[in-house]
Amino acid sequence: MAGSTLGTMFRIMTWGESHGKGVGVTIDGCPAGLSLCEEDIQKYLDRRRPGQSRFTTARQEGDQVEILSGIFEGKTTGTPIALIVRNLDQRSRDYRAIMDVYRPGHADYCFDAKYGFRDYRGGGRSSGRETIGRVAAGAVAVKLLSHYGIQVEAYTKSIGTIEIDPRHFDLAEREKNRLYMPDATAAAAAEAFMDELMQAQDSCGGVVECIIRGVPAGVGEPVFDKLDACLAKAVMSIGAVKGFEIGDGFAAAQSRGSVNNDEFYTEADGAVKKRTNHSGGILGGISDGSEIVLRAAFKPTPSIVRQQRTVNRAGENVEIVVKGRHDPVVVPRAVVVVEAMAALTVADLLLLGRCAKL
Amino acid sequence: MAGSTLGTMFRIMTWGESHGKGVGVTIDGCPAGLSLCEEDIQKYLDRRRPGQSRFTTARQEGDQVEILSGIFEGKTTGTPIALIVRNLDQRSRDYRAIMDVYRPGHADYCFDAKYGFRDYRGGGRSSGRETIGRVAAGAVAVKLLSHYGIQVEAYTKSIGTIEIDPRHFDLAEREKNRLYMPDATAAAAAEAFMDELMQAQDSCGGVVECIIRGVPAGVGEPVFDKLDACLAKAVMSIGAVKGFEIGDGFAAAQSRGSVNNDEFYTEADGAVKKRTNHSGGILGGISDGSEIVLRAAFKPTPSIVRQQRTVNRAGENVEIVVKGRHDPVVVPRAVVVVEAMAALTVADLLLLGRCAKL
Amino acid sequence: MAGSTLGTMFRIMTWGESHGKGVGVTIDGCPAGLSLCEEDIQKYLDRRRPGQSRFTTARQEGDQVEILSGIFEGKTTGTPIALIVRNLDQRSRDYRAIMDVYRPGHADYCFDAKYGFRDYRGGGRSSGRETIGRVAAGAVAVKLLSHYGIQVEAYTKSIGTIEIDPRHFDLAEREKNRLYMPDATAAAAAEAFMDELMQAQDSCGGVVECIIRGVPAGVGEPVFDKLDACLAKAVMSIGAVKGFEIGDGFAAAQSRGSVNNDEFYTEADGAVKKRTNHSGGILGGISDGSEIVLRAAFKPTPSIVRQQRTVNRAGENVEIVVKGRHDPVVVPRAVVVVEAMAALTVADLLLLGRCAKL
Amino acid sequence: MAGSTLGTMFRIMTWGESHGKGVGVTIDGCPAGLSLCEEDIQKYLDRRRPGQSRFTTARQEGDQVEILSGIFEGKTTGTPIALIVRNLDQRSRDYRAIMDVYRPGHADYCFDAKYGFRDYRGGGRSSGRETIGRVAAGAVAVKLLSHYGIQVEAYTKSIGTIEIDPRHFDLAEREKNRLYMPDATAAAAAEAFMDELMQAQDSCGGVVECIIRGVPAGVGEPVFDKLDACLAKAVMSIGAVKGFEIGDGFAAAQSRGSVNNDEFYTEADGAVKKRTNHSGGILGGISDGSEIVLRAAFKPTPSIVRQQRTVNRAGENVEIVVKGRHDPVVVPRAVVVVEAMAALTVADLLLLGRCAKL
Repeated sequence: MAGSTLGTMFRIMTWGESHGKGVGVTIDGCPAGLSLCEEDIQKYLDRRRPGQSRFTTARQEGDQVEILSGIFEGKTTGTPIALIVRNLDQRSRDYRAIMDVYRPGHADYCFDAKYGFRDYRGGGRSSGRETIGRVAAGAVAVKLLSHYGIQVEAYTKSIGTIEIDPRHFDLAEREKNRLYMPDATAAAAAEAFMDELMQAQDSCGGVVECIIRGVPAGVGEPVFDKLDACLAKAVMSIGAVKGFEIGDGFAAAQSRGSVNNDEFYTEADGAVKKRTNHSGGILGGISDGSEIVLRAAFKPTPSIVRQQRTVNRAGENVEIVVKGRHDPVVVPRAVVVVEAMAALTVADLLLLGRCAKL
Repeated sequence: MAGSTLGTMFRIMTWGESHGKGVGVTIDGCPAGLSLCEEDIQKYLDRRRPGQSRFTTARQEGDQVEILSGIFEGKTTGTPIALIVRNLDQRSRDYRAIMDVYRPGHADYCFDAKYGFRDYRGGGRSSGRETIGRVAAGAVAVKLLSHYGIQVEAYTKSIGTIEIDPRHFDLAEREKNRLYMPDATAAAAAEAFMDELMQAQDSCGGVVECIIRGVPAGVGEPVFDKLDACLAKAVMSIGAVKGFEIGDGFAAAQSRGSVNNDEFYTEADGAVKKRTNHSGGILGGISDGSEIVLRAAFKPTPSIVRQQRTVNRAGENVEIVVKGRHDPVVVPRAVVVVEAMAALTVADLLLLGRCAKL
Repeated sequence: MAGSTLGTMFRIMTWGESHGKGVGVTIDGCPAGLSLCEEDIQKYLDRRRPGQSRFTTARQEGDQVEILSGIFEGKTTGTPIALIVRNLDQRSRDYRAIMDVYRPGHADYCFDAKYGFRDYRGGGRSSGRETIGRVAAGAVAVKLLSHYGIQVEAYTKSIGTIEIDPRHFDLAEREKNRLYMPDATAAAAAEAFMDELMQAQDSCGGVVECIIRGVPAGVGEPVFDKLDACLAKAVMSIGAVKGFEIGDGFAAAQSRGSVNNDEFYTEADGAVKKRTNHSGGILGGISDGSEIVLRAAFKPTPSIVRQQRTVNRAGENVEIVVKGRHDPVVVPRAVVVVEAMAALTVADLLLLGRCAKL
Repeated sequence: MAGSTLGTMFRIMTWGESHGKGVGVTIDGCPAGLSLCEEDIQKYLDRRRPGQSRFTTARQEGDQVEILSGIFEGKTTGTPIALIVRNLDQRSRDYRAIMDVYRPGHADYCFDAKYGFRDYRGGGRSSGRETIGRVAAGAVAVKLLSHYGIQVEAYTKSIGTIEIDPRHFDLAEREKNRLYMPDATAAAAAEAFMDELMQAQDSCGGVVECIIRGVPAGVGEPVFDKLDACLAKAVMSIGAVKGFEIGDGFAAAQSRGSVNNDEFYTEADGAVKKRTNHSGGILGGISDGSEIVLRAAFKPTPSIVRQQRTVNRAGENVEIVVKGRHDPVVVPRAVVVVEAMAALTVADLLLLGRCAKL
């Protein structure tokens, strides 16, 4: 168990490196009877593809998913669903410049310290391609959740210091700009900022927000497997995420109980609702029936085409310039990854929750 | 597996309610040969006791830990270490006021939705007393880590909007004030703020910061069991935590790669170091050898002695006043809980890491 | 995770040594709403007590279970159920004779090799008292299963070479003799054999058979978590068990397909039944709706009051006589342990199976 | 987690059906630095291929393994090793005869009861092809174990009632006959018996014995994860296995302590040895340093070309003849599967054991 397994009931195991034969994931525990085809998964993979914008790397990956098992006559059988995406672009590159040098902000040094050596071709398991397995499995989780009336939607909340304006929020806008921002004005400002960054050979970070609708009250386990704790782990496990919030998050630390407590009320049909949602849909680690709201902070892409000081394997102080095309910001491509991780987490705890009562 | 288990190698299972016979924890997987006595654990439990300040509940709990198993001739045997703390104050109270009402900001409604009923005496498993098991097990993890030269220290970083000033940072000060703030000036201001809040029958939140020193590079598993992801889950599983950061956290989302990348250099003795620590000691989910820095945002205590609107089990809109003495802020008592969760996580991943190489 | 956890949904963690403060178990994952009291558990513990026969050790243990958590108003809450049995008989004994010597047939040498030292007082975690946690948790599993119409019953099938005669099988007889044999004639012969063994300062083994009735078809997971595989692990984990069979077991290896295949037929009410049950109620690792039949072979008690050759910690060849009263056969006391392990396994897989379909 | 995961440190997840696109396995937790190539795995897969004998099905499968990830410059990287074997023979067959009928002795009825429907093409996940994933992963475990001086070897001990004679035991003979029997005389008798069975359109079972050499004392966890318990689960999870023994197994139940206890002695070089090995190399669930000996009883192949009575999905009593070529005995092909399961279990517990001491 070297970290590539996630989930108890809806369990996934991912595999693959950026420059190996392919990447993939196996899902064990998807209930039998769910309609599922490759297109259900492909449309999620397409959303994480680069080349959709001039701010994301131009390499056309064309990641095509193949379902290898677990489907019979268009439906899940309850047995493992193996998914594979072949790496098409395996051309030999010249890695001599980085093979013995630890890139600042990357995991190179840590992998070497851990395993005694590292796969220096494109980052190995710390590469962005590792997220293909997450997204592919997440698409299956999304399909399962939709069967139960649950939707998961994420978007770019901010790029650098440019944030969407809640008054201009329009989810439909998300698809119309290449930064996945649901606010046309903010998106335009962010695109201008990106141009400036590329000019300056620099990169930036941003925040992704995710809304999960339709989760019934009662999902999440007390104590260690709280819904928010599991969401935090799932989202923080995405490369480059440095912060996580649920509901009001860090702002709650500056609030008061009289403001932060969400009052309950009953609707005409007897449904229990909350007047506000500072909790972000989770109380005591268990869903309270309102929208689940979470945010993830992504650090700036560490790959920048600037000279940086670092160390090589021989322990010498050296300088490095990381060549090649790099995304100046990972956030737009990470939106679908956050959705995937959220969906995987809710699916797992939803199934686990079936055993809470006699 | 209803959420009360944490960890793979250093695995713990906690149990107990605030108003049952006691609370406790069993640790399975502490290596054999570690010196351990009740005092090692008691001193950590004493740090989470209320009654140490006029801002924390006055009830004298006097939680005494008893080691029931796993120690022979003063050393761990490698077999389970069972720890128990009896609840002394089990006097029958009058819970009629809250037994059928869902307290705003509490997990009452969620537990009812999940299990079909709830233990209304003091919150059951969502009570603050649940953290005793965490702290007791955490103290053992701390002892184990100290054997390997690793220290874990947390403190109050902010109370409401009052934050410690890094220029006045003095860890020794932490023990001198009742808010566990390592800055005498900030502590004084926070105490004044607390008085005002108590007057106003209100409560507030705050931020705890935790530093882990001495973790060698290479701890943490790639992909899903990244060190920061596991820390996030562990810390977010503490009741009332709504946000988590590692290193620069959300500030990193507003930074640039040229600033956020920590450059490596080699010291005279060949040790690889970083010039800055924006990463908070973790790159690609694996420790990089520098200090691990994390923060947790706590929401305001939901129990306030004010009239609030809510709903009862019959689905009627009602009003509630939660009587009794309550902490207007949980942060000072939570400091040791954050330490415990951090220690448990690092101990588990440190042991898991023994299998990374041949 | 040093081996003291069992189960995924109905998960238990046991703790305690024979000569420490007590032994116990925590159950995490028992569904909410099950009526449960100490007497439900005590009656199972009483069945494993020694002193009920002149062939089992005379020490009166009087193991009294205490429920510490997880019950509210007589019902399970869905949160952990902690159970403790204090060790009453902790008088200091003289262990000098065995503390440095590895008893033949015991785990002394293995524990020392594993942990670098051992708790020599009565076997530590390899003591028969370790089974108290199993039986206490098993009693809860039995209560849960009975809610779903499932019964688990075990008995002594053979003692040494003396086996019950299927034609004289009478389960009621089981309670009437001290060897738990459901055949009065065989029991009488076995008692005579036991007398002879005690005279000869020797010991013997035997076989326990267990029948599980009422398990619906469909319980068990394909591939690695087959119902029979999980039962095998659970039962083989009982100290002294050296063999396990399901249905016809080893006899099936000598049979033919035309005989061994159980033909299906439909009853008037549409129920699918089998004409025979060579499979022992499990096909492809999944329950087939008929009785589940399993057997466990126990080796002779290794503690015999005879001079034996062995080795001490210093690596010297020495002789040893293990003094004290010992059961010449563990089988009668193990019957309830087999029931417990079978119940724990079926309960876990029954709950897991709730997630098989949409 | 629907049963397709095995192991904690050396964890595998298998996938695939007999008539889908392929079968495979992903290994997460193989330590970094192990030399590994496809040939290491292929030679194990070749041993389970049919068509090597007239007693095993003639279909040429030609299962070619492909390593998809986890290897860099000929060595394991510590990250997941994904292995795939494409199903070549996917020609459409006529399954109408069995698609609505439950074959006696097969898992058809149980899968239907569990999932609400079944993949009727060749047994789905209960097919013998499912073992390809086990053998492929097992080959990697074997390679890892050999690095630590551990060998795993299994052979056919008996076919029906024909058993090898210990006096004629010759492991080299195993490769010379198609039944994998290490005794030429017994092999000849068994081949004659097989001819007779095929004539009679019947099938038979048999016993596989496995010897594991070189396991140091101290492997295995106390209580639930005993080495023998884990071996039992792993081996009993192979389709058609109905019984499991360690060391003397069921014969121990008829033995006496004075005979069954293995006495220890010290060799000239200080090594602790045992004069006998009734324990089969495991005491108290932990390896004792001597050879580990286990046996698995396989039932007769349920597929026989005879008319049998059964039930269809509509609940009608019907008759069935299962056409096609079937192995009259699975034992020879199962030998390598038993080796694989034993190797996977020992590898996992060997790695886990690294955390037993400080």
